[in-house]
Amino acid sequence: MPKVLLPGGQQKTDDKMRAFAEQVFASDARDENVRDEISMFDIADDCPILHQEQAMHLDRDEDEEKRKKRRQRCRTMGVPMACSTLSSVAPVVDVEVETPTYLEVPDFQRVAIIGDYASGVTMDDFELSCKGLYRAMNIREKYMRLAFQRFPNITSQYLREMEGEPFRPEDQVQPVFTSPPKKGEDPFDVNALPKNLGYVARMKDGVIYVYDDQAAADKGQPRALPCTDYDTFIDDMNFLIALIAQGPTKTYTHRRLKFLMSKFNVHEMLNEMEELKELKNNPHRDFYNCRKVDTHIHAAACMNQKHLLRFIKHSYRVDAERVVRKVDGKDVTLKELFQGLNLHPYDLTVDSLDVHAGRQTFQRFDKFNAKYNPVGASELRDLYMKTENHLDGEYFATIIKEVASDLEDAKYQYAEPRLSIYGCNPSEWTKLSGWFVRHKVFSPQFKWMIQVPRIYDVFKARNFVPHFGKMLENIFLPVFQATIDPHSNPDLSLFLQHVTGFDSVDDESKHSGHMFCTKSPKPEEWDIAKNPSYTYYIYYMYANIAMLNQLRRERGMNTFLFRPHCGEAGAVTHLLAAFMTADNIAHGLNLKKSPVLQYLYFLGQIPVAMSPLSNNSLFLEYAKNPLLEFHKKGLVVSLSTDDPMQFHYTKEPLMEEYAIAAQVFKLSTCDMCEISRSSVLQSALSDEEKTHFLGEHYLKEGPEGNDIRKTNVAQIRMAYRYETLCYELNLIKEGVKAE
Amino acid sequence: MPKVLLPGGQQKTDDKMRAFAEQVFASDARDENVRDEISMFDIADDCPILHQEQAMHLDRDEDEEKRKKRRQRCRTMGVPMACSTLSSVAPVVDVEVETPTYLEVPDFQRVAIIGDYASGVTMDDFELSCKGLYRAMNIREKYMRLAFQRFPNITSQYLREMEGEPFRPEDQVQPVFTSPPKKGEDPFDVNALPKNLGYVARMKDGVIYVYDDQAAADKGQPRALPCTDYDTFIDDMNFLIALIAQGPTKTYTHRRLKFLMSKFNVHEMLNEMEELKELKNNPHRDFYNCRKVDTHIHAAACMNQKHLLRFIKHSYRVDAERVVRKVDGKDVTLKELFQGLNLHPYDLTVDSLDVHAGRQTFQRFDKFNAKYNPVGASELRDLYMKTENHLDGEYFATIIKEVASDLEDAKYQYAEPRLSIYGCNPSEWTKLSGWFVRHKVFSPQFKWMIQVPRIYDVFKARNFVPHFGKMLENIFLPVFQATIDPHSNPDLSLFLQHVTGFDSVDDESKHSGHMFCTKSPKPEEWDIAKNPSYTYYIYYMYANIAMLNQLRRERGMNTFLFRPHCGEAGAVTHLLAAFMTADNIAHGLNLKKSPVLQYLYFLGQIPVAMSPLSNNSLFLEYAKNPLLEFHKKGLVVSLSTDDPMQFHYTKEPLMEEYAIAAQVFKLSTCDMCEISRSSVLQSALSDEEKTHFLGEHYLKEGPEGNDIRKTNVAQIRMAYRYETLCYELNLIKEGVKAE
Repeated sequence: MPKVLLPGGQQKTDDKMRAFAEQVFASDARDENVRDEISMFDIADDCPILHQEQAMHLDRDEDEEKRKKRRQRCRTMGVPMACSTLSSVAPVVDVEVETPTYLEVPDFQRVAIIGDYASGVTMDDFELSCKGLYRAMNIREKYMRLAFQRFPNITSQYLREMEGEPFRPEDQVQPVFTSPPKKGEDPFDVNALPKNLGYVARMKDGVIYVYDDQAAADKGQPRALPCTDYDTFIDDMNFLIALIAQGPTKTYTHRRLKFLMSKFNVHEMLNEMEELKELKNNPHRDFYNCRKVDTHIHAAACMNQKHLLRFIKHSYRVDAERVVRKVDGKDVTLKELFQGLNLHPYDLTVDSLDVHAGRQTFQRFDKFNAKYNPVGASELRDLYMKTENHLDGEYFATIIKEVASDLEDAKYQYAEPRLSIYGCNPSEWTKLSGWFVRHKVFSPQFKWMIQVPRIYDVFKARNFVPHFGKMLENIFLPVFQATIDPHSNPDLSLFLQHVTGFDSVDDESKHSGHMFCTKSPKPEEWDIAKNPSYTYYIYYMYANIAMLNQLRRERGMNTFLFRPHCGEAGAVTHLLAAFMTADNIAHGLNLKKSPVLQYLYFLGQIPVAMSPLSNNSLFLEYAKNPLLEFHKKGLVVSLSTDDPMQFHYTKEPLMEEYAIAAQVFKLSTCDMCEISRSSVLQSALSDEEKTHFLGEHYLKEGPEGNDIRKTNVAQIRMAYRYETLCYELNLIKEGVKAE
Repeated sequence: MPKVLLPGGQQKTDDKMRAFAEQVFASDARDENVRDEISMFDIADDCPILHQEQAMHLDRDEDEEKRKKRRQRCRTMGVPMACSTLSSVAPVVDVEVETPTYLEVPDFQRVAIIGDYASGVTMDDFELSCKGLYRAMNIREKYMRLAFQRFPNITSQYLREMEGEPFRPEDQVQPVFTSPPKKGEDPFDVNALPKNLGYVARMKDGVIYVYDDQAAADKGQPRALPCTDYDTFIDDMNFLIALIAQGPTKTYTHRRLKFLMSKFNVHEMLNEMEELKELKNNPHRDFYNCRKVDTHIHAAACMNQKHLLRFIKHSYRVDAERVVRKVDGKDVTLKELFQGLNLHPYDLTVDSLDVHAGRQTFQRFDKFNAKYNPVGASELRDLYMKTENHLDGEYFATIIKEVASDLEDAKYQYAEPRLSIYGCNPSEWTKLSGWFVRHKVFSPQFKWMIQVPRIYDVFKARNFVPHFGKMLENIFLPVFQATIDPHSNPDLSLFLQHVTGFDSVDDESKHSGHMFCTKSPKPEEWDIAKNPSYTYYIYYMYANIAMLNQLRRERGMNTFLFRPHCGEAGAVTHLLAAFMTADNIAHGLNLKKSPVLQYLYFLGQIPVAMSPLSNNSLFLEYAKNPLLEFHKKGLVVSLSTDDPMQFHYTKEPLMEEYAIAAQVFKLSTCDMCEISRSSVLQSALSDEEKTHFLGEHYLKEGPEGNDIRKTNVAQIRMAYRYETLCYELNLIKEGVKAE
C-alpha cells in the first residue's frame, strides 16, 4: 500500500495522526444517530468532569502525596463553597460537625447553594408555606406518638427548635415487636402469657374503649388512656386539605422537590465513584448478603405461579382419594373435585392455572381479583389458598411454610405477608389464630400483618353486618379481649405476638362519594348500603389501633403498626389520611400528583413500599414508575413484590424485583443497598434483628446510624441524605422564625 | 341519612342510579390524569371490540349452537373479507389451504388488505423494489447453500415461482450437528474417528483449498469442491450496497415494515384471547417447560458474578497452598497470589470483584472489556477464566461444568457458549481441544462455538503474525487437517464434533476505514498495521467455513454455522455482509437504521439472537431496544444473555432475561413461547434434539411445522406468521412478474 516512502520517524507519526483523523471523520460521518441513544444522564461520556473524576478515583495506587495535592486544589477551586459551609444560609454542616460519626465519612464533594434561601418564591409566600409545612409536621408527630409509631428524631429536633422548646429524646416513641424465639424456645408456648387484668372493652362511636370493670363501662367512664379526638382530627385534616391545595405552598414544595432531584443528580455525578470505592473497600458485604425485607406481600399470593402449580400436582399425587370438601353433606375427594372441573392435574400448566396477571389486567382491578382463582375455579382457591376449609387450611399452611423455607435457604431475605380479617364475624380471629397455631405457621423469616378489605358494602348487601360499627367491633374487639385476658383465647394471644401491624386493602380507584367530616354518621349509625370513604375507614382503623397500642404498651406487649395500601390509585386525599395516621404505606404512586404531600412524605421520611412490577400489570407502566424519582429526591422507598403468584416469573421474586429495577432504572450498588436498608428499617423486624442486620446504632439518623459493614451503604450517601434533609428542615425553620 | 322515604322499589333503583351517576361524575372529576398512564396500545379498555372479544372468548361454556351463530355473524359482517381470501390480491390463503395442517388451526380473524398491492408507491417504484429484493434474496440463497446454511423453504418456493422454475425440495440444504451421545456412549471415544484421506490443505488468497495430494497442491489443482468466487461476491455486495441506499426500495420496505407492525397490532387485538385459549387447552406444557436456548453467551462470562465469587472463595479454602502460577521461574501459591494483590478472599465481595457492568460502561466498550478482570487483576482472569495457565485451565473447566450442571437441573435450558481461537498461533486449537478433552468439558446442555476476535492489528503490532493471511491460516488450517486426517490430532477431532459454528467478535464501533473491494489486498499481502474492515474479516471467515463444510459433508462429518456478532454498533454494512454470509447473527440492533436490510432479514427469516440486558449496559437503553418491534414485525428473534457475569443478578440468567423482557415489553405467554421456539430453531441443537423438543415436522414452515404440545405456541400465531410472510413474498412475485 505505501507507495511513497518518507524518512522513518516523521512518517510514522503522520500516519498515525492521519489514521486517527480519518477514523474520527469516518465515525462522525457514520454515527449521526448515536447521540439520541445515549444515556439517562444528559452528560456525554467525554464530559470532562466525569473523566477527571474517574481518573482520580479509579487510580488505586494514588499515594498520600497526590491525595493531599488534590485536596488542596479542591479547596482553592472551591473558595466560596468552603466558606459557605459555615455561613448561616447553610447551617446544615454545623449539625453534621456536631455529630460524632463512629465511622468517619470520607471526603466528598458537596452541593451548596449560596444566597437564596426562599428558593425563588416571594418572602411572604415562603413564610406562609413554611408555617403550613411546620404545622403539618406537627400534626403527624402528634398522631405518630399517640399510636407508638415512628417519627424522625431530626425532624422532631427542628420542630422543637422552631417552637423554642428543648428536644427531649425520651419523648420519642418506638413500636415494639416480638423478638424471634431464642434457641430452644417454643414460639407456641402458652405458659408465658400474662394473667387477666379483668378490664372490660366496649365500643363507643366506632372506637373501643377500656374500662376498669363492668360498672365503669356502664357508667361510660373509660380508663384514662390518651386517645384520638374526633373533632381535632377533622380539624387537622381540613387544615391539611387546604394546605395541599394552597397555591404558594404548592409552588414552594414543587420547587424544593425539583431542587432535590437536581441536587441528587449532581451529587451522583460528582461522588458516584467515591461511593463505589467505599463499597469496594467494604469487606465481605455486597448487595447479595445485605438483608432485605419484602415489605408488602399478600400471603395468599406469596408463592409464585410455578410453585403453586407444582404444589397442586404434588397434592394430587399424594392425596387423590382424600376428602377435601363437603357439598350438600356429600364427601368430595380431591380426584372428584378435579373431575368435576373437567381437569386432570397432570395436564395443568401455568397457562391453564391462569393466575398470572397478563395484559388483560391493566387498569382492571376487577379482573385482577378474579385471577386469584386457579383455573378460574373458586373451589381451588378455597382448597389451596384459604385458612378455613374442609382441611382446616392445611394446604395453604404447607405452601406458606415452603415459601418460608425457601427464604430461610436464601438467608438474607425476609417478608411481611398479610392475612385477612374481614370483620364479617367475631369468630374470624379465633379461626385464623387456630389455623396459625395448629399448623405451626411460624418462621423467623416472616413478620405477619393483618389486612382488612374495605368491603363493608358487600357485607351489608348480604346482611352479614347491621352497620359499619359492627364490622369494626368484629375486627378489634377480640384483639382487645385477648390483650386484657390472654388466657381466654391462648391461640389468638400467641398469634398476636407475631402480628406486627394492620393493612387496609382494596381497589382505591373505587370512589365512595362520601366526604369524611364532622357531620359524618358514627360507625354504629352507618347502616346504609353505601361504603364509607377511604378516609373514614382509615380514621377508625387508626383510632382503634392507637387505643390498642396504648393498652398493649401498658401490658408490656408488642404493638401494631398501621401500614395501609395508599396512593395506588384514587384521590390524593388518601395519601393525606395516611400522612396523619400511618407509620408507612404501600404503593404511594399518587404522591406524583401532589407536590405538597410528596414534600411532606420526604420531611417525615415516611417509608413507601413500592411494587413497580405490580403497578406495571395494574396501574402504571414500568418505565413510568416514580420509584427512581422518589429515591433520588430522598423519599424513603423500599421494593416489594405484592403478589409473586401474579406478577413474577423466577424462583426468587424479591430478587427479580430488585434486578428489574436495577436494570431499568440503572441503579448503582449503593442505590440498591440503600433501598435494602430502608426495607429493613421500614419493616417490623424486632429491635434485636435490626441491631443485628443494620448495626447497633440503627435508630440514629445519618451516617452515625449506618454500619457500612452490615448495610453496604456508603457513608457518603448517608451524609448526603442527612445533610439534605437537615437543609430542607432548616429552611422551614428560617421561614417560621422570620415572623 | 335518607330523610324522605319514597315507596320501596322505585326509590331503590333511583338511589342506585344516582349513586352510580355520582360515582362516575366523581371519578371523572378526580382522574383527569388517568389517561396518560394507560397502556401500550392505543385502545382504551372500554374499547367495544376488546369487550366483545373477551365476552366471546372467556365464556368457557359457550355451546356449539352459539359458536355457529357467531361464525355466521362473522361471515355476514365480513363479506368482502371472506371473498378476498380467494381473490388474486391475497392468494396467500391458497397456500394455507393447500397445506395439510396436522393439528388444525383454530378459527381466527384475519387482516386482509383489498385492492392496493403496490402498497402506496408508484408502479414503477414497486417493480424496481421488487426486482431488487428478489435479486437480494437470490444472492443470500446462493451463499447459504454453498456453506450448508439455512434458507427458508417457502422463500425458495416463491423465488422458483418468480423464475418459472420448479421447486425441488432436494436442493434445500441443512447443516449437520452431532447428536448427543446415546446412553453408555462415550463422547470422548477416539476409536470411531474416520481414517486419513491423505489430502493436502493449503491456503491460497486467504482461503484454504484441498488438494488430492502434494503434487496436485504444487500444481495448484484443488479438488473440485464448489467455492466462493471473490469477484462475484464483491459484485453481489456492491449490488446490495446500492440497493439499501436506493430511494424507492427504502420507501417501499419502510412502508411494508410499518404495515407489518400495524398488522400485528391488529392481529393481537383481535386474536389475543383465542391464542391464549389454545395455550390454556394445551395440556402439560407452559412457558416454564418449553425448551429454550441461550443462543449467545461467552464461556468466559457464562457464570454469574455471585457464582464466580463463590468459586473463588471455595478454591481458596481448598487450594490455598497449591502452586497456581510461575513468575520468573518461581512458584506462586494461591495464597501468595492473593497476598500479592493485597486481598483475602474472605473479604471479597461482588463489589470488590467488580466484574459487573455498571453505568460506567454505557457507550464504553473499552471499559466493558476491562471488567473481565476480577478485582481488576489480570492474574485472576488468567487463573479462573482461561484455558491455558499453570493449572491447564482446571478452574475454568470446573466453573463451566458447574454452570452446565445447573442447566441440567433446570432441564429445559440449553446454551451455546463461545470459546476463543485468536489465530495468533497454529497450536491454539491443539491446546484448546486438549483442555476440552482432558477436563471432559462436555454436557448435553452445551453446544460449543468458536469466537474469533477481530484483532489482527494487535497481533501485527506485537509482531505475532506477519500478515493477515497467517492469522486466517492459524484459525482454519488445523481444522482442515484434522478433518482430512482425524487421527493426526484426536483431541481436536473429538472437540470439533462438538463445535457447531464460528462467531466473529469485537467492538463494532471501531472503524477500520478500509473499504472491501476488488482492489483490496489479498490476506497474504495484508501486512500493514491497520486492521482489515468488518466485511473483509467476514468474507474470509465465510469463504473458509464454506470450503470446510464442503469437505466435512463429503466425509459425513458435522458442519459449522457462521453466526457473527453483527449490528451491535458501527456501520449498517456489517449487517449487509452478514446477510450474504451468516446463518444467523447476534445483536442486530442496527437493523433499526436500514429498512431495506430489516425487510430482507424478515424475508430471509434470518434469526437474530438479541440481548437487551447487555445492550442496556453498553449501547442502548432497555426501553428503546428494538426487540419488541422486530418481534411484532415478524423478524425471527431469540433472547440471549451474552455475559451473565457482567449483566445479570439472579441464579437463572436466561430466565431473568425472559422475565425482564416479558415485564417491560408486556409479552404474552404466546410471545414468550414463540421466542423460545425460535431460539431452539436458531440453535445448533441436533436434528434429533430438535425433533424431540419441537416435534417431528419442525423443519416444515407454518402451523404444519409446529407441535403445540411441545412448543406451546398457538397455531393461530403460526398461521398468522406464515400467511404474513407468504403475503409479502407474493407481493414481490407480483412486482417481478409485472414486467
